[in-house]
Order: sequence, then C-alpha cells, then structure tokens
Amino acid sequence: MAHIPVGILGATGMVGQQFIALLAEHPWFKVEWLGASARSAGKTFRDAAAWRLPNRLPDEVANRMVDAAEPGGAPRLVFSGLDSSVAGEIEAAFARAGHLVVSNSRNHRMAPGVPLLIPEVNAEHLKLLDAQGESTGWRGRIVTNPNCSTVVLATALAPLCQFGLKTTMITTLQAISGAGYPGVPSWDILGNVIPHIGGEEEKIETETRKILGTFANGRIEYHPVTISATTTRVPVQNGHTESISVGLAERPTPEAIIEAWTSFKGRPQDLDLPSAPPRPIVYLTEANRPQPLLDVNRDGGMTVTVGRLRPCSLFDYKFVALGHNTIRGAAGVAILNAELMHREGLL
Amino acid sequence: MAHIPVGILGATGMVGQQFIALLAEHPWFKVEWLGASARSAGKTFRDAAAWRLPNRLPDEVANRMVDAAEPGGAPRLVFSGLDSSVAGEIEAAFARAGHLVVSNSRNHRMAPGVPLLIPEVNAEHLKLLDAQGESTGWRGRIVTNPNCSTVVLATALAPLCQFGLKTTMITTLQAISGAGYPGVPSWDILGNVIPHIGGEEEKIETETRKILGTFANGRIEYHPVTISATTTRVPVQNGHTESISVGLAERPTPEAIIEAWTSFKGRPQDLDLPSAPPRPIVYLTEANRPQPLLDVNRDGGMTVTVGRLRPCSLFDYKFVALGHNTIRGAAGVAILNAELMHREGLL
Amino acid sequence: MAHIPVGILGATGMVGQQFIALLAEHPWFKVEWLGASARSAGKTFRDAAAWRLPNRLPDEVANRMVDAAEPGGAPRLVFSGLDSSVAGEIEAAFARAGHLVVSNSRNHRMAPGVPLLIPEVNAEHLKLLDAQGESTGWRGRIVTNPNCSTVVLATALAPLCQFGLKTTMITTLQAISGAGYPGVPSWDILGNVIPHIGGEEEKIETETRKILGTFANGRIEYHPVTISATTTRVPVQNGHTESISVGLAERPTPEAIIEAWTSFKGRPQDLDLPSAPPRPIVYLTEANRPQPLLDVNRDGGMTVTVGRLRPCSLFDYKFVALGHNTIRGAAGVAILNAELMHREGLL
Amino acid sequence: MAHIPVGILGATGMVGQQFIALLAEHPWFKVEWLGASARSAGKTFRDAAAWRLPNRLPDEVANRMVDAAEPGGAPRLVFSGLDSSVAGEIEAAFARAGHLVVSNSRNHRMAPGVPLLIPEVNAEHLKLLDAQGESTGWRGRIVTNPNCSTVVLATALAPLCQFGLKTTMITTLQAISGAGYPGVPSWDILGNVIPHIGGEEEKIETETRKILGTFANGRIEYHPVTISATTTRVPVQNGHTESISVGLAERPTPEAIIEAWTSFKGRPQDLDLPSAPPRPIVYLTEANRPQPLLDVNRDGGMTVTVGRLRPCSLFDYKFVALGHNTIRGAAGVAILNAELMHREGLL
Repeated sequence: MAHIPVGILGATGMVGQQFIALLAEHPWFKVEWLGASARSAGKTFRDAAAWRLPNRLPDEVANRMVDAAEPGGAPRLVFSGLDSSVAGEIEAAFARAGHLVVSNSRNHRMAPGVPLLIPEVNAEHLKLLDAQGESTGWRGRIVTNPNCSTVVLATALAPLCQFGLKTTMITTLQAISGAGYPGVPSWDILGNVIPHIGGEEEKIETETRKILGTFANGRIEYHPVTISATTTRVPVQNGHTESISVGLAERPTPEAIIEAWTSFKGRPQDLDLPSAPPRPIVYLTEANRPQPLLDVNRDGGMTVTVGRLRPCSLFDYKFVALGHNTIRGAAGVAILNAELMHREGLL
Repeated sequence: MAHIPVGILGATGMVGQQFIALLAEHPWFKVEWLGASARSAGKTFRDAAAWRLPNRLPDEVANRMVDAAEPGGAPRLVFSGLDSSVAGEIEAAFARAGHLVVSNSRNHRMAPGVPLLIPEVNAEHLKLLDAQGESTGWRGRIVTNPNCSTVVLATALAPLCQFGLKTTMITTLQAISGAGYPGVPSWDILGNVIPHIGGEEEKIETETRKILGTFANGRIEYHPVTISATTTRVPVQNGHTESISVGLAERPTPEAIIEAWTSFKGRPQDLDLPSAPPRPIVYLTEANRPQPLLDVNRDGGMTVTVGRLRPCSLFDYKFVALGHNTIRGAAGVAILNAELMHREGLL
Repeated sequence: MAHIPVGILGATGMVGQQFIALLAEHPWFKVEWLGASARSAGKTFRDAAAWRLPNRLPDEVANRMVDAAEPGGAPRLVFSGLDSSVAGEIEAAFARAGHLVVSNSRNHRMAPGVPLLIPEVNAEHLKLLDAQGESTGWRGRIVTNPNCSTVVLATALAPLCQFGLKTTMITTLQAISGAGYPGVPSWDILGNVIPHIGGEEEKIETETRKILGTFANGRIEYHPVTISATTTRVPVQNGHTESISVGLAERPTPEAIIEAWTSFKGRPQDLDLPSAPPRPIVYLTEANRPQPLLDVNRDGGMTVTVGRLRPCSLFDYKFVALGHNTIRGAAGVAILNAELMHREGLL
Repeated sequence: MAHIPVGILGATGMVGQQFIALLAEHPWFKVEWLGASARSAGKTFRDAAAWRLPNRLPDEVANRMVDAAEPGGAPRLVFSGLDSSVAGEIEAAFARAGHLVVSNSRNHRMAPGVPLLIPEVNAEHLKLLDAQGESTGWRGRIVTNPNCSTVVLATALAPLCQFGLKTTMITTLQAISGAGYPGVPSWDILGNVIPHIGGEEEKIETETRKILGTFANGRIEYHPVTISATTTRVPVQNGHTESISVGLAERPTPEAIIEAWTSFKGRPQDLDLPSAPPRPIVYLTEANRPQPLLDVNRDGGMTVTVGRLRPCSLFDYKFVALGHNTIRGAAGVAILNAELMHREGLL
C-alpha cells in the first residue's frame, strides 16, 4: 500500500514530537510536512527543535525543513499538537483550506459540530462531520481528541453506561509529561504534590459528558452523568492515575462490571487498526494495581488499565484507572482517530 | 519546674525515633527510659538503633541503655511506637502494671474504653478513662492517637460537624514516611503511584467516626457520617495530601466554612500546651495549596493546612487538606495528648 | 532450529525475573526449569514469586513449577541470578554435576579459572575454561559476568587500551534497581544521594583489571591500569551514570578516541548474536548526554552510551558513560555470554 | 542595637527570596528596600513575586513596595541576587553610587579588585577593597561570594592547604534548587541525571584557586592547585554532594586531615557572627554520610559536612563533601560576608 502523507502542526513541541515518534514506523502514515512557528520555519527539524524523547528521532524527519504553520504545502491529513494559545485560528484556517485536522488541542473540542473522539467509545460521533461542514462552510474538517485525563476516565466509564451511569467522583494523580515542556518546574514537583491543574477539572467534567453523549438529529446529546473532579500533579513521568467512584442505577454485580470492561471493544478492534490495542481496557486483579511504572506502557501505551473494583459506601462502586497520558491520552489516540477515519473512508 | 520522666516503647523504630527527636527540647518531658525488643536490650541506644532522622540524636539518649519492653524500670508515663505485631500485649501489660501508655499503635484504638484522641477535636473523650479502668481492672491506662491519614481528615472535618456532616468522600496521596523503615522499597515508589495501602481505608472510615463521636453515658456514640476512602502512596517524603468532598445538611456558605476552620481551637490552645500550634487548622487562599514541600512543616508540623474550598456537584463542598504524617499524624499528636493529660491532672 | 532448554537459578529474585523477561522471546533459548529456595520449591512460579517488572510474565513461566536449587532436573545450560549469600556453593554444585552455569553473582568472578566476561571485550578469556576444568575436576563450568557498574566502565575503557591506558578515576551515580528487591528503602533515597555502596568500589577496581587483562599461558594477566572509584546511589530507576577520567600514555586526539569507541566491535557483532547491539558503544555529541531517561534503553538496553569527551587537566581525558545496569550490566550480558558460547561450540 | 537597614537587588527571584527568608529574624540587618525589574517596580512584593519557599513570607516584606533596580532610595548595604544577565551593570552602578554591594552573582567574581569571599576561608581578601576603590573610582564597593558548588569545595579544601594541596579531582551531584526558578524542568530531571551544568566546571576550576589564593601586594596570588571538575544535576531538592580526590605534597595521616577539618575555624567563629555555624566543617564517621536529606540543614544550612575519607590509589585521599547550595552556597554566605564586614568596620 502506498503511504498516506501526513503533516504535523506544532511539530517542534512535545505533542508534535510524540506524533513524530509514534508515526516513525507507522504502516499507513508517513510524515511529509512539519509546521511550526515563524521562529522555526526555514530550519531543518534538527536545528529547530530540541528532541526530548527517548525514542530515536528518524533521520528523515530530522533533516526535513520546517514550514510555517500555514495551509499550502501541507498534505490533506494534518495532525495538530499546537499550543492552545494559537491552535484555534490556525486549525480553522487549515480546515477552511480543505485539510482534515486531527487535533489534540482543546480549542475546538466543545464546538457543537466537532467530534470529540475516542474511537472505541464514540466512533459514531464522526457523523457530526456533515453538520460541521454545513455550519462552517469549510472544505476540510476538524476532529479532536479529549484532554489526557478525560480520555482515561471516559474510556473506563464507557462500558458502565449500560448500567445507568448517574454520578462520578474523581481525583486524579497526573504525570508531569502532561504539562509539556518545559512544563512543571522541578522546584515545584520533586517530592511534592500540586493539588491543582488549571482548567483540568472543568475539562473532565464537561468533555466526558460530550464523549459519552448520543448522536441524534445531527448533534450530540450530552450524557446526563454528574461529575465532580479534583486534579493533582504528582512526581511521575508518564501515566495519569485516577481514583473514581460511580453511581449506577442498575446496581450491577462486580462480576458484571469486570465483564463489561473486559469484553469492551470498539471499531478500532473490529477493524484491526494499526494502533488499536487488543482490548482497550484491561482489568488487573492484584490488590495494588494499576501502577504507572508497571502498567502504563501496556500495548504500546494504548491500553487503559483498571483495578481495585470494590463497593463504595457513598455511591455504588469505586475503582482505580490508569492510562498513558501522552500516548492513549494524546498523540496515540489522535493517530487512532485518523486510522479510523481512513478505514471509514473519511480521509 | 522539675522534668517529668517519660519512657519510650519501641524506641529504636521510626516512631520511637520521632518521639526522641520531638522530646529533645521538650519543656516538661524528659526521656529517661527506652524499651525495645530483646535484640536491642542491654545495648546503648547508639549501638541498638540506626538513627535515620535529620534531627540530631541527643547524646544523653544515644548513651542511654535500652531496656526490654517490660514494665518495671519504666517511668509512669510511657509513649509507645511499638509495631502493631507486638503492641497489643505489651501495652496492655504496661497499663496493667500501672503505666499511662500514650500509644501511636493501632491495636487498642477501637476498644470501647480507649480514647482515640486528637486533643483539639475530642478532649472530652478522656472521660472514657474511668470506664477503661472499670472494664479492665488496670491500674494504668491506655490512650491512643489515630492513624496518620485519619488525624488529618478528622481535624479538617471537626469544625464542619456543626453544619450537619453527612458524607465524606476522600482520596489520599500519602508520603512514604508513613510506612516506617525500611517501609516502601524505592523500586516500588520512585516515579510511581501505589494505589493501595493495606488496611488504611478501613481505618479512615471507622476511626474518624469514633473521633468525631460524642461521649455519653460512659461510652462514645459514633458520629453518623458515612465515609468512603481510597488511599494511595506517592513519592513524597513527608505529608499526607487528601482530596475530600463533604455533604453538609445545613448548606453553609463557603465563608462560613472557612470561618469555622480559621476560628477552630481546642483545649491545647486554651491551655497553651507546649506542642500546640497557634491554630490547628490554617486555610490557604492560593489556588494551588496546600503542598507538602511548602506547607507540611508549618508550626513544627502540628498545623493541618486546608485549601481549594469550592462547591462539589455531587455533595456540597470539596477541598484539599494536608498534614505532617509523622508529627501531627503520629509522634507529635501523641505528645500533645500527654501534655493535655498532664495539664488536666490525669498523669 | 530447535530451542535450547535453559534453567534459571534464583528465578524468583529480581535478576531471575530479568532473565525470564529477556528470554521471553529469545530465538534460541527457552526457559524450561526454574530453581529457587526451598520456600518456593513445589509451587508454581506465579505463586512463588511477586512479579515486579513492567514486562508481562509469560504464562508458560508463570505456570511452571519451581524446583529446589539442586542439580538434577535442570537442563545443561543454567543462568544464575542467585544471591551471593548462597551462590558460591550452589553454582559449584551445578558445575560439578555437569552444568554450564552462566552467572551474574559475584562469588566466582575473581577465581583464576573463571572467565569474567563481557563478550565484546574479552571473548578470548573463554580459553580459561580448560584450566577451570583441570583445576576443579568439574564436568561442567562456570562463566561469570562483571558487577553492573564494572560492565559499563570496562566496556568504555576497552577501546582505550590501545592508547596505553594507565589510570582511571571514576565516580558513579547508580540506579536503585542495581540493589535488587526490596533493595534501597525509599526513606533513604527519595530526593537524596547515598555516597556509598558496600563493596562496589573494590569490585570496580579489581574486576576491571581482570576483564581488560590478557590471556596467556592458561591464565589471565591483569591489566596494569590503576583505578580509583567512588560509588554513589541516586534516585534513578535504571541506568548507572559514570564520571570517568583517564590517563593515556599515547595521548591520542579526541577524534581518535571517538573513532575508537565508534568503531569498537567484538565477537557478538561479528557473529550477529541475537542480543548483540549493532554497536556496543555509541558516542553522543550533545553537551548534556548521556542521560538515563533518554539513553538507557537504546538497543534494548545493551548499548553503552558515552559523551562529554574533553581534556582533563589532571589526567588526559574525561567523559561520561552510561549503561543499563540490569540489562547490559546483568541479565542481558549473561545471555550474551551464553549466546557467544553457543556459537563458539562451548555449550 | 539599632537595626542596620539593607536592600535586596533582584528581590523577586529565588536568591532574593532566600535573602528575605534568612533575614526575617536577623539580629542586625533589616530589609528596608527591595529592588527588581521594571515589571515589578511599583507593586507590593506580594503582588510582584510568587513566594516559593516553605519559610513564611514576613508581612512587612510582603507589603513593601518594590523599587526599580536603580541606586537612589536604597540603603548603603545592598544584597544582590540579580540574574547574571543584568547583574554586571546594575551592581557597578550601585557601587559607583556609594553602595556596598554584597553579591551572589557571578559577574564581578573574578575581577582582580573584587573579594571572592568565604569568611572562614579568606577573610583577608577584604583587603582588596582598597585596590578596588583605586582602580574603579567607585565610592562604594562590590564583594562577592563564590558559585554554590565552589563554596562547598573551597571550604573543604581550605584546611588541606597546609598539607601542600596540589591536585583536586571533583565530580558534583548538584541539587535542582541551584538552578533557580523555573530552573530545571521536571521533564528533564525526575528520575534522571543530567551530566552537564553550563559553565559550572569552569567556575569551580577558577574560582577555587582565587579563593584559596594569597593576598599580597594589593592583589590575590592564585593558589597553584590544579582542579579538574565534572558537574552533574541530580533529583535532589537542596544540597550539593561532591566526590573529591586530592593530592597533598605532605602526605598527612587521615587523622591529621580529620583534625584539620574539625579544628578549622575562621573570623566568623572568632567574632561569633550571627550566621556563623559553631564549626564550618563537620566530619561524619558513618560509612554512608554525608547525605543531603540528613545533613544539609545542619546549623541552619551553614555547615559543610564531610565524610568517607580514605586513601586514593591515584592521588592521596578521597572523600565526600556536602553543603546547602542556597544557604551556605548562596544567600547564607553572602549574609555572613556582610556580617563580617560590619564587625570589621567595613560597612
């Protein structure tokens, strides 16, 4: 199969670098365009960016010239890891010019016509793309993925919706890589906990309801679950851990919940997409799991691990979930979004 | 004033060392007896124990001979930092022999006649000591302090009881010093989160209800609050951080809650006890506080700091609390217990 | 090719687990026997051991019955990750009984007839095996690999011997995984440096001279280099970093040294052994490399990375070296030793 | 005694904050002026700066108006924690205008007429101030303290000069607080080692020779010791650990060296200056000391601890030294410099 050329917006940033790393061996997509700020444009990637990942930087990308973040030379499919301070306008300009923008940025996530996609959870939301075209007049489209902590939560909750999900209380323990680079100063986080991440609690509370919502009449009807979130930063490199308590109208047995998680699958698994893990959710039976160091890289970082399911004296059940924030929670899920769209004929 | 001689049971362990460190300059109490296992008995403390605290080991303690953990040579007042595998019987033996045992161990905490004491919260529970004498026939008595994570929670909740405290959801992020020495292997916790601490959730859920309970008719009537706890270990040296959500029947304003915390005082403050902080609870207004690195040592580690009070969409309010687990949560609160008993004439 | 059955002595320990993890997909060797202490014997591996690696435990190993650490049922080739408190006698018993013991333990390393092997550095030392047989009368043999910090140093020094290596000053910054499990308590190392590792400095100073020595007349003539080592523990999960200064009689140019490292190869590369990295040493040109987080897993953790070559005002040159202590420095190099012996017809 | 008013240049930065924290209870000096960049000028300190220390910010400082970093309203004595990008000119302007600038910045350290002072080591270098006045024509003066890692080294070496110090090889393991705020990104240092700190090795190699040099004929004759330094950053909050090897012409016994360290004193001890520790150097006999977590705060962070003295096979002796980089290595030593100058009548 011929490769599908892709571009990367915000290529020099940390999300951009994650895109480059994850696409290095991709069977379908090939990075053929890099867009970044005016300061980087005109330089090779090697000169424009300090590569900060343990993965090796592919020579072909290293030697590629970085372009300005403007539509024109870019391929039709563009991944965006742009900073939210500029992503809104640039991504819209690319969509207007006919590009399919698969974005990790928050700017367009909550727009009514924009799918906020976790392919295993709400592939159906791609039907929004018609409405998006009508309301914007864009020749291209924007598809987004959720905030990293939301991806983990929404994935773990998706199989519970069948039990009448009513309430969700969550406290997160989030890795420092979620804040990008330079991100969190070591002065603040070494041996410490920061019990606040700006805007994160609101994102969890609102994005999750859109993701779990239903497509009907050309729009998403939000899921009625009430969510209350507290977000904290902990000295962990990769992996957001989430302490979650849920109220379920149907009061299922623990076995039914574990079965729901274990059997959970979506379009990516049906279509055997390249970045799809065998199972989106794995339940761990050991009493002290999941743990970032041991579980975050399972299946290339694309699996959400869950454990410690037990009764909650206030709601119905509580459990712990974990996901790789820069892979399943960012660049990896975006790539899975594009894979799904390709196989669904939407590219 | 002449010094009051005190003994330390479990002197070579980490809680014992904390007692020694905190008592080094104490205006009333003077360590004159050290009790430990048979392996240590007959050696000087310096030879029997590896001192693991940044505080300097006082020469007088270092050169003192360690005794077996048996009543006999010990002074009337004995602090116990014994491991729970042996604390039950040894502490009872000391109480039987006429000693006043001020214990940090969990063994006797939930016994009906044993005060589970945070002096600012439930000094009144010392009235249990009569019942304890009657039911046991001991000449001495046992007084305990709660588990470290419970001390922080119960202190933060105490001023909220006046608003009709109904429900408490809590997720803890606990420091490694809470597990003693050698405690948590670095292999398990460096850059990691362990989402489970054996027995800790049960302790929080039950101890808190006793502490907040009411003394009536010679016994404690437990507080009716329903608590659901998740406990995790994080790579922090000292300081348990707690994400807490509460339901309050009276639905007070945020200002009323902050005023309740800020004005909260107890007998230790009234009596100006040596280890009493000026205020047991301090509310921090910065959006990202409290933090272990910045706040845990406030007032010698005896203050509980609270922050981030805001509405909870599931209960009424949520907030973050922090306390020093080995000082306010262990040796420091035990010493405050003894100070209170001394001033109340119970020694 | 039919698989070669192998056994693992000390299978439940951390080095044993590393052997299991690294052999899970091995093209030649298949784990068919597990030996451990009497406490584990008779249980399945899953029941006998707490699996502590992020790698997934292969089901076939998990369900295998653990045997006592005695020769008998074991295959001819046995990897040993035994604790040094018992390795001496058990390994000798296996060698006496005809087994080929490829050991990571320190007990037999310095014995005159035992190769202390880094396959790229001193494959020729396998010629010692004849002398070993003569002096011991064993039907089998023991081959050892060096201490983890020594492997990194000796590999980096090997290409410098051609320049007349006279002196080596080294300070190490060693990862906590080098101490096994439970190993270093988090109380001691979180946010800390421990400037001492028992016995480690002596091992570096003596083992290196044997490894770099010459086989002649049936014995190893030690390399005359004088080494002075200081070893420290730092809060790093994997990867020993080494600050090294060398005196070189020939006073080569920096370019000559880098060329010597870059072109360095050994028998494993010539024979294209399965665990051999393309190049044993990679020189990194960035000013702030190598770093554990970024470089330790290069080529499956089998590459030693070197950087910061610059003149030393006291000796001739100084540089920084890094290697994965549990892979290149332990289980990985042992497996490479066995691969070499297999291809050299010594199994 | 009436307080001596002092000003702080660069008051909002991390060194400035350390000055404020250490001067909060100072018996002589009182902060009465704060100077910072134009962005901060005209605001209260509380509004201009984010306070990042565990020490409590004194209300009086918090409410003080920040001034521009220009001479004029400032008191005669000014501490400077200015960033080196601006310190050179601003400090000179203050000295020209008649201020006594006690600076922690590197800009003027190596100027021939500027004392590079550790009061216990080279108080005599204050005699340079005459020459400084003559060569510059300034009405005021500049006195500097060394780079943080140099302070620890030079203090530990000072008592060894009597034994004919010839050579010093050093590898440092430096805390993140040495890099200020935001300083080292957690992405780079959490669980990692960075084997390079820009410019640090040169500073150690040159500053030490000036500090240990001799005042003669109106200038400093540098000490002839040859130093070779490697500097690394480790995930430690406070405290630079240094692995040091020295060549000593006189070949003293280990006992003589320890005696030299233990008996070492300087003018600050003779004059009983407020910030002077009882002994500038303490030798620890435990095999695994000094350690940052346990030893860095000894005597308010003003003591350099030394341990592990043992023979070096390449030079004569090796040992490990530790000092608090932001106290003894920065703000604390600067305050001690000012205290010494006050008592010597140089203010």
